Amino acid sequence: MTKEQLFKNIKSKKSFLCVGLDTDLTLIPKHLLKLEDPIFEFNKQIIDATKDLCIAYKPNVAFYETQGAEGWISLEKTINYINDTCKDIFTIADAKRGDIGNTSKMYAKAFLEKLNFDSITVAPYMGEDSVTPFLKYKNKWVILLALTSNKGAQDFQINPIFKTQTSKYLFEEVLETSKKWGSLDNMMYVVGATQAEMLSHIRTIVPDHFLLIPGIGAQGGSLNDVARFGMNKQCGLLVNSSRGIIYADSGENFADKAREEAMKLQNEMQNLLEKYL
Amino acid sequence: MTKEQLFKNIKSKKSFLCVGLDTDLTLIPKHLLKLEDPIFEFNKQIIDATKDLCIAYKPNVAFYETQGAEGWISLEKTINYINDTCKDIFTIADAKRGDIGNTSKMYAKAFLEKLNFDSITVAPYMGEDSVTPFLKYKNKWVILLALTSNKGAQDFQINPIFKTQTSKYLFEEVLETSKKWGSLDNMMYVVGATQAEMLSHIRTIVPDHFLLIPGIGAQGGSLNDVARFGMNKQCGLLVNSSRGIIYADSGENFADKAREEAMKLQNEMQNLLEKYL
Repeated sequence: MTKEQLFKNIKSKKSFLCVGLDTDLTLIPKHLLKLEDPIFEFNKQIIDATKDLCIAYKPNVAFYETQGAEGWISLEKTINYINDTCKDIFTIADAKRGDIGNTSKMYAKAFLEKLNFDSITVAPYMGEDSVTPFLKYKNKWVILLALTSNKGAQDFQINPIFKTQTSKYLFEEVLETSKKWGSLDNMMYVVGATQAEMLSHIRTIVPDHFLLIPGIGAQGGSLNDVARFGMNKQCGLLVNSSRGIIYADSGENFADKAREEAMKLQNEMQNLLEKYL
Repeated sequence: MTKEQLFKNIKSKKSFLCVGLDTDLTLIPKHLLKLEDPIFEFNKQIIDATKDLCIAYKPNVAFYETQGAEGWISLEKTINYINDTCKDIFTIADAKRGDIGNTSKMYAKAFLEKLNFDSITVAPYMGEDSVTPFLKYKNKWVILLALTSNKGAQDFQINPIFKTQTSKYLFEEVLETSKKWGSLDNMMYVVGATQAEMLSHIRTIVPDHFLLIPGIGAQGGSLNDVARFGMNKQCGLLVNSSRGIIYADSGENFADKAREEAMKLQNEMQNLLEKYL
């Protein structure tokens, strides 16, 4: 998907919501467990109930790998279902991959070609040649970790001991360096919503890039702050909510409840788009 | 596997060789492609031909994911075959994972519990809570990326702009900080053989940890330098070779040729153990 298509979808759906498919057999409604592929069945119902309210789905690959080859099949069925039924949805393989070039090329093939995701999250520690193999695919995206939403972000990403002549924090250097590897049309960055106060500064480094913002809801980030400090003239935000939507209810009406939660966020987003765009 | 068992195996096999199973359908001998699971069949023959010469196997997970669910089945069969037939082999899932705690816990379950690998390679960028879920398993290991063998190591790991009061480079701070998260009995580090001249300095930070050293052979690292600068009193090294061994020959005798190459390295290692241990 191109940046223009993504922005067009945001405007027409009045939403910049990404729904995270962190599908866990121990958390999904019990009545689904008797079905042949409970993970896919759960995802399918969540997708059917929310696809007009969101602009992206983000399966968290760890949750599928935990189920071995069966989980991989559930992931394949999920991405195929999204690609077949929602032409206006951006898909994110939340996989946090990254290795030497020869190996990153294999991960790129796995997620961007074979599974046909629009994008994949990538870790920056191994540098340029670990990231560029993912940038070879037309209209596909790298979403590079910059500033994450977890406590461990303090260990290296925002550890003040890495203050340099040009940068205050490691994550700023990651942004400065890596933005030269790709373009506005094939690179986005992960910035945790729990770091919303950093967003206005981040926008001085990457004013026009799209940002994937996890950490709304269960992790405590504020959607208002994210929009206030992070929105740019093409919105430039994909805000993810996983558990707050998909596990809103554990009964037979889970998909309706998920829709209600997604709609609350979409309504807030509509207001924020009107206010800041 | 415990550190003591690993050292015992090194002494009895006179080897610190890890064989990397970067199994690629486009590179394995053509006659295997007509079999039901060519990747597993290739691995099985490589394992049978080399298991007395090496102390570890390291499947590179990217190569299996590229084949989707089928690749995951090949990976499952490979690790099960190693665990069933080679009791004295240390197994490494070369997966470079790492995410927020909730998600790392899922990756840990996938690789250390369900697939039952002895260890997994982990990326440090997201900090402590992205790593510690992998340390909860008894006699299982995290192998954390410190200084990698690729060109991109220069972007962040050994970029001189991250010089601090106590450390010259980012990777040194990764070592200093992360060694407190685990112990000598559940943490190792990845240090590329192409950075062998750094090893004596690295040994001042982590004198007693085991190091996984990729980059011998195809990537140009020197085994002699690695042993000279990196060996400690329990050897403390697992030196990986992938392509140089497994793709030594593309004909029907590929496994014999792989054995020959593994034996060359084992012989060199035996000499180096006698010299430095």
